[in-house]
Amino acid sequence: MNGSWGNKLGLNVFGESHGKAIGVVINNVPAGIKLDYEFIRGEMYRRQSGITVGSTDRKEMDQFEIYSGVFNSHTTGMPLMALITNSDVRHKDYEKIKNILRPSHADWSAYQKYKGFYDYRGGGRFSGRLTAAIVFAGAIAKQILSMKNIKIYSEVLSIGHIYREEEHLLLSRFNSKFMDETDLTIRYQYAKLLTENMINEIVRVKKIGDSIGGKVKIMATGVQGGLGGTLFENVEGRISQMIFSIPAIKGIEFGMGFDMVGKFGSECNDELEVRDGKIIATTNHNGGILGGITNGMAIDFNVIIKPTSSISLKQKSVDISAMKNVEFTIDGRHDSCIVPRIVPVLECATALVLLDLLLDEGELDIKW
Amino acid sequence: MNGSWGNKLGLNVFGESHGKAIGVVINNVPAGIKLDYEFIRGEMYRRQSGITVGSTDRKEMDQFEIYSGVFNSHTTGMPLMALITNSDVRHKDYEKIKNILRPSHADWSAYQKYKGFYDYRGGGRFSGRLTAAIVFAGAIAKQILSMKNIKIYSEVLSIGHIYREEEHLLLSRFNSKFMDETDLTIRYQYAKLLTENMINEIVRVKKIGDSIGGKVKIMATGVQGGLGGTLFENVEGRISQMIFSIPAIKGIEFGMGFDMVGKFGSECNDELEVRDGKIIATTNHNGGILGGITNGMAIDFNVIIKPTSSISLKQKSVDISAMKNVEFTIDGRHDSCIVPRIVPVLECATALVLLDLLLDEGELDIKW
Amino acid sequence: MNGSWGNKLGLNVFGESHGKAIGVVINNVPAGIKLDYEFIRGEMYRRQSGITVGSTDRKEMDQFEIYSGVFNSHTTGMPLMALITNSDVRHKDYEKIKNILRPSHADWSAYQKYKGFYDYRGGGRFSGRLTAAIVFAGAIAKQILSMKNIKIYSEVLSIGHIYREEEHLLLSRFNSKFMDETDLTIRYQYAKLLTENMINEIVRVKKIGDSIGGKVKIMATGVQGGLGGTLFENVEGRISQMIFSIPAIKGIEFGMGFDMVGKFGSECNDELEVRDGKIIATTNHNGGILGGITNGMAIDFNVIIKPTSSISLKQKSVDISAMKNVEFTIDGRHDSCIVPRIVPVLECATALVLLDLLLDEGELDIKW
Amino acid sequence: MNGSWGNKLGLNVFGESHGKAIGVVINNVPAGIKLDYEFIRGEMYRRQSGITVGSTDRKEMDQFEIYSGVFNSHTTGMPLMALITNSDVRHKDYEKIKNILRPSHADWSAYQKYKGFYDYRGGGRFSGRLTAAIVFAGAIAKQILSMKNIKIYSEVLSIGHIYREEEHLLLSRFNSKFMDETDLTIRYQYAKLLTENMINEIVRVKKIGDSIGGKVKIMATGVQGGLGGTLFENVEGRISQMIFSIPAIKGIEFGMGFDMVGKFGSECNDELEVRDGKIIATTNHNGGILGGITNGMAIDFNVIIKPTSSISLKQKSVDISAMKNVEFTIDGRHDSCIVPRIVPVLECATALVLLDLLLDEGELDIKW
Repeated sequence: MNGSWGNKLGLNVFGESHGKAIGVVINNVPAGIKLDYEFIRGEMYRRQSGITVGSTDRKEMDQFEIYSGVFNSHTTGMPLMALITNSDVRHKDYEKIKNILRPSHADWSAYQKYKGFYDYRGGGRFSGRLTAAIVFAGAIAKQILSMKNIKIYSEVLSIGHIYREEEHLLLSRFNSKFMDETDLTIRYQYAKLLTENMINEIVRVKKIGDSIGGKVKIMATGVQGGLGGTLFENVEGRISQMIFSIPAIKGIEFGMGFDMVGKFGSECNDELEVRDGKIIATTNHNGGILGGITNGMAIDFNVIIKPTSSISLKQKSVDISAMKNVEFTIDGRHDSCIVPRIVPVLECATALVLLDLLLDEGELDIKW
Repeated sequence: MNGSWGNKLGLNVFGESHGKAIGVVINNVPAGIKLDYEFIRGEMYRRQSGITVGSTDRKEMDQFEIYSGVFNSHTTGMPLMALITNSDVRHKDYEKIKNILRPSHADWSAYQKYKGFYDYRGGGRFSGRLTAAIVFAGAIAKQILSMKNIKIYSEVLSIGHIYREEEHLLLSRFNSKFMDETDLTIRYQYAKLLTENMINEIVRVKKIGDSIGGKVKIMATGVQGGLGGTLFENVEGRISQMIFSIPAIKGIEFGMGFDMVGKFGSECNDELEVRDGKIIATTNHNGGILGGITNGMAIDFNVIIKPTSSISLKQKSVDISAMKNVEFTIDGRHDSCIVPRIVPVLECATALVLLDLLLDEGELDIKW
Repeated sequence: MNGSWGNKLGLNVFGESHGKAIGVVINNVPAGIKLDYEFIRGEMYRRQSGITVGSTDRKEMDQFEIYSGVFNSHTTGMPLMALITNSDVRHKDYEKIKNILRPSHADWSAYQKYKGFYDYRGGGRFSGRLTAAIVFAGAIAKQILSMKNIKIYSEVLSIGHIYREEEHLLLSRFNSKFMDETDLTIRYQYAKLLTENMINEIVRVKKIGDSIGGKVKIMATGVQGGLGGTLFENVEGRISQMIFSIPAIKGIEFGMGFDMVGKFGSECNDELEVRDGKIIATTNHNGGILGGITNGMAIDFNVIIKPTSSISLKQKSVDISAMKNVEFTIDGRHDSCIVPRIVPVLECATALVLLDLLLDEGELDIKW
Repeated sequence: MNGSWGNKLGLNVFGESHGKAIGVVINNVPAGIKLDYEFIRGEMYRRQSGITVGSTDRKEMDQFEIYSGVFNSHTTGMPLMALITNSDVRHKDYEKIKNILRPSHADWSAYQKYKGFYDYRGGGRFSGRLTAAIVFAGAIAKQILSMKNIKIYSEVLSIGHIYREEEHLLLSRFNSKFMDETDLTIRYQYAKLLTENMINEIVRVKKIGDSIGGKVKIMATGVQGGLGGTLFENVEGRISQMIFSIPAIKGIEFGMGFDMVGKFGSECNDELEVRDGKIIATTNHNGGILGGITNGMAIDFNVIIKPTSSISLKQKSVDISAMKNVEFTIDGRHDSCIVPRIVPVLECATALVLLDLLLDEGELDIKW
């Protein structure tokens, strides 16, 4: 493994939270795509700090600049490099506790791997900031996928124990029924990222200096059947490998997932029928993937996002300069709930997997 | 992606359920290992049909024969090929319904990918039978890992809605506490694969012609800190990619996983302390992986296994030869609950990931 | 690197010269190909020992048996495994000198890598016998390529210092001129693998107990332009990587190659013109590849095959059991010139690269 | 293939000749290396235009700026990104002939692959300018290799038909003899890149508006035995794959290479002996690699560099805007002989292969 992601796409994310810049090199973007910069900016704005409740006060306008791979406003098929400059950087916040391993951060594992050499400021490469590069790349992937009529949707199912109320369920209630694209699109436009109660919970948790996670559903519609493969080439595995690359994700389930515990085969199986000359499944409990291969139904999975590790409460840990136990608190800026900001990252990461899958199987078919 | 699994190890599983044989080519097994055939046979026996309640009546004594990569009873470092012959094969069971797409099997997705060309008999390459090859390879991996004192444990947490009773919980109750190796080993030897109630439930479900799934925990102890990497090189992703290669797995969670919904950061964070001159975490809610990198605590994850798709009850589906809706039942032999048989597969798959990780990072250190 | 070759094809060659069998697992062979067993056998026969002057007396009828990936006589798209049994094996020839590192064999380097563990009998995995597996796989590749009208030709340019006389030059004289497929095919059928003088030279060298190498040209016609890529994705590199996998190859040159030394740019450049509405080059000094990408002209390269290392003359070397200098002779069977037997291997290896290239770029377009 | 080079190292070169910048992302550089910027600048200076006879008049001071992967002057183990800005860019030179396919440039093949979308200015990504990024990365590789006492040497063997005279031969005369490191180092420091006669030839060719190529030897000493592997993992193949990534290379030979034509096995075999308790070969006709695996002797290979395609003489080609034949001349700046500038590129490319090989096999052993 050489650090580059993708069978065909070639994604390379570089940079550290408090370095000069972060960025990405994307190899094998198809030639001839007129990039939609407004759309890319929109996606990056969704991820950006400061626009949703519960996020940090760090203000970082995620401006990207493309250095290669685009000529006369179209992609050239050559590696596309984009820089996203780091501007609002406060080093001091991190100097103070640089020898204290923050509980459930990567500090401890990184210390074991890189000894004293990694850039600890702001989490360095472990920072959620790096996901801005994934969103940049994923926004391009989304644009290309939309040319094949593939769309990616998301829904916050819960913030902590505050679940989306029945009447606000959008994706999930249709999860188990076949529905056409139009139906989904109409309903989706009314979705709100968070319900009132969810917002209240985030505000409450922030006040007490603690943090909270949540559960998010991702759905991709329009994905053709027959992608992926048996055993090691299975699509669930490809998606999971990418999704766990996003900091704070600790679980993933496809279709009915963990709810299959306590259910019978007869309740979990998706029966098939011919409708309008095409085969469809009347339910989608398997999340669009059977035997590792897409079946043409919506790709449907949920992920769990853990509560942010950085909390303002007093915690016990170790100071490695003295190898002694300490009690300490994390100052500085941090999110009490990163769920809303991770939503576009999850969508974009999914788009990257699907684009790579199509490229890998020679099924993209965008040719001039 | 060329169908071969592993960054360094090189696993190639071939064969179909009802073909001449299945088997595996494993590249880059370290040279000089004296293979423990008894151990390998033991692992394969655990997976084999007929020895646990709820499994099919098909009798297939999994005999392996090694064709290459071993000389004078030691591995040579060259590709190790082993054949596992298929003996108890009844083609007729499958001819009858070869045009009917069995609900929630790979029939439908495979049909979209391979048209009429794939070997549908007994599920072909989609059959759980292929996991015998994974167990063979994984048993070798386990043996090598044990030379580094890495051990892999498992526990069936539930069969359907029958959860392991509190007093029988072994791994999971210790999940959130630091414990030394001895403690774990002693307690583990008393573990039973299934409790009485679980067995009763499987028997009951089999009688009504339905099927049932379950939840399994896997733990690996002795894994050094500092393996893996940030973003796309994260260890959760590597494990997941492999685990989803096993048929019937639909979800995975690390450490506290989906239970983090409804918990605060202060409840999920693992505090650290110095004990006997070494840094340890007093809990392991993150399952031994932080920021994608191992931290030296036990690797700990749970998976959900869906109820077997093959059930004896009447189901609706499509006959592709006539493109018409049908009602049908699946005869032939099939498991009503595959959870007990998947347990060793999960362990062996985990062993393969860990061995590959060590090889990939140049950390195996078995040299002569 | 996990030991499996190919970006998409997935070639895994296993076995040792004097083990039970050698064989191959090929992943991602397209589904639906009706394999031409006669053609495969013909290609393997070309490589086989005993049918050309100068080869060893070992008689090994290369019979293959397919174990997976074929159903109802068509490929299924699943891993295709074939075994080629070793029958005529004489271990004693090798026991005698097992502690003596044969000059210019892999004995010395293998000893440094694998210590005492590798299978030294008959060269083990370093034996030319393993190329039978490459020919098996390559014959399938050739058959698939022929469906896209891609053909692969070869010509022995020299055996030792005996060069093919001007009047017998076939491929090479047309190398620098544009010619249509028909012209080439007609001329090629008159080619003889070796000229009279070449055969005489091999016979002479065999008598004196020495060995001799040669130079071979490979040409592939019908390869579309636009395959490959800049820098690390260049086609010359992909071909070379594979060609050097064949034992005894020590050099490769594309198009005019080393003859460009002493020539001017004006003599090496290939001028272009429009002919019948298509762009063609009037010469092909660059061997069909420019900037790493195919240009639609014939792929054209030469390789040098070193004289066989095994000779009957007295040689100096080291006995590793005593770490002392020795003089010794190699008895046993060996080829005094392996050039004729390597020719089909080179063709088949080239076919594998081209098939992988087409699969990798989604350009194979064999769909049903 | 995802466009990223290396099994473990992860090299990603981006940028176009006349874009904003070129650069490189290198994944998996070991942590804790204090980079020697003076050395890197020195290597880049060797490659740079304008400092050797025969090169273009374009002045591009190759200044690099590191954006990530370095903290407190040491590498962090994270992706190292460096930008090299393009400053002296004249677009007009290229607009004039943008529709004419320059003979033996990548114009024709790129046109077939990317249609009208690639950046044609100054050769875009096909430009030799991109090799500045390879030199940057390779200089770092050289520095790391020197910590293991691996050194890389080079020698221009010929410029066109002007061969290095016998008395100036340095590496090549020792090629076939065992020599210790000291001997080589002393002799090497007297080497001149080009002899008087070579320089005269380049000047002469430049005057007549033509171009000329040459032959270069590369040697790497200090490489341990036992690296690489049989068949597809052979070291010659790895080196070749990288070397052909450098524009203008059309052939490679290891050890005695093409000179083995016309020689007997007894003349090509390298006899072994025990000297000072160690096994050595008394000659090195195989270039340090046997059976695909290094044997501890110097890695030794030659490459042929074709005469630059851009010449000032009138040439015939095709104007693709009108699809008609044209006669034209290439104005603008170009090298009449790029051999001297390619020499450091070849060294650095070799260093990258060797570093990747060591990392891939877990043999780098630089740990803290």
